[in-house]
Amino acid sequence: MPNFRSLPAPLQNLTEALSRLPGVGKRTAERLTLALLEWPEEQLCSLGENLIQLRQRIHPCRQCGNYSEDELCGICTSPQRQNNIICVVETAAQIRVIENSGSYHGLYHVLGGRLSPLNGKGPEDLRLPELRTRLQTGSVSELILATSPDVDGEATAHFLTQEFASLPLTISRIASGIPAGADLSYADAATLSMALSGRRKIN
Amino acid sequence: MPNFRSLPAPLQNLTEALSRLPGVGKRTAERLTLALLEWPEEQLCSLGENLIQLRQRIHPCRQCGNYSEDELCGICTSPQRQNNIICVVETAAQIRVIENSGSYHGLYHVLGGRLSPLNGKGPEDLRLPELRTRLQTGSVSELILATSPDVDGEATAHFLTQEFASLPLTISRIASGIPAGADLSYADAATLSMALSGRRKIN
Repeated sequence: MPNFRSLPAPLQNLTEALSRLPGVGKRTAERLTLALLEWPEEQLCSLGENLIQLRQRIHPCRQCGNYSEDELCGICTSPQRQNNIICVVETAAQIRVIENSGSYHGLYHVLGGRLSPLNGKGPEDLRLPELRTRLQTGSVSELILATSPDVDGEATAHFLTQEFASLPLTISRIASGIPAGADLSYADAATLSMALSGRRKIN
Repeated sequence: MPNFRSLPAPLQNLTEALSRLPGVGKRTAERLTLALLEWPEEQLCSLGENLIQLRQRIHPCRQCGNYSEDELCGICTSPQRQNNIICVVETAAQIRVIENSGSYHGLYHVLGGRLSPLNGKGPEDLRLPELRTRLQTGSVSELILATSPDVDGEATAHFLTQEFASLPLTISRIASGIPAGADLSYADAATLSMALSGRRKIN
């Protein structure tokens, strides 16, 4: 690799490691490496130690599967959350997306994936027993299925609906349609079809 | 900050640290943090240790100022480089840009900045004595000034030209003009002026 010929080994290693991050190519990784070299030593060490300790300090919340420092996460233990609604997501990262929208105040349940027969993912790979236990305590009145609106996500939502149909609770599915601010002219057929079939009466 | 309400402290710290990198906003930093959580522990630790040791392992080359693990950098010690040409750059990071182009095979000299009276940067802040020593050994026949073609960079190049005018060597300046592949229609006045004044006879 002539490009890296004269980059010292530690910088080369760092560049290679950073280029494994999503959206970071070789050029960006090199730019980040050179920027890190300009950081004060104290900040560099603090970032390094944070990375090393990350796995020891962060683990899934025993109840919902969210990232947590303690046995239960900040959402499960918060007295300000509505504890009669559970929103089912595929990954803990998706909780962040919903939290950032500021439009949901209930609890979550991380499935840890989605049904995907082609990738060998079946119901036994999801955190279903944990969800069943939570729903059977009786204090939950609504289960929102927020798996992605694609083939596997829809199949997972369908499976969950059947799985918990016998329980005395409302099961709902997040709406799919034209994204806010988007131009209808550029909507794809699948999205348009979902937007039409999910139409609501205005009055 | 409601956005970070339920993100555990180690993840929040990591996100804040990453958002100090160039081109990384709060959202990207959070995305990178969540991606890092999915990395194998071994890779995380290796990245962390690399960051902690970065400053101890990398320091400026004693001769040219390039990043180096040893006292002299890989370029200064390479027998394949033309050691009678020195290209003057402002920062060590700029060496990477030129190296990546693959179009230069001489040595470098990092100034460690540029003359910038408004920012209180004078000649005493640049690695000038080191450059003078190198030029006075007599084996250097050409000094290429590759400071940026903006006000401070031009002033720095002008200063260096005068500073070393008495030495028996050719002093040259990198060409400025329309970038390769760019459309002339969108060139700014300063660039066009440089492209015209720097025109070359075709035959």
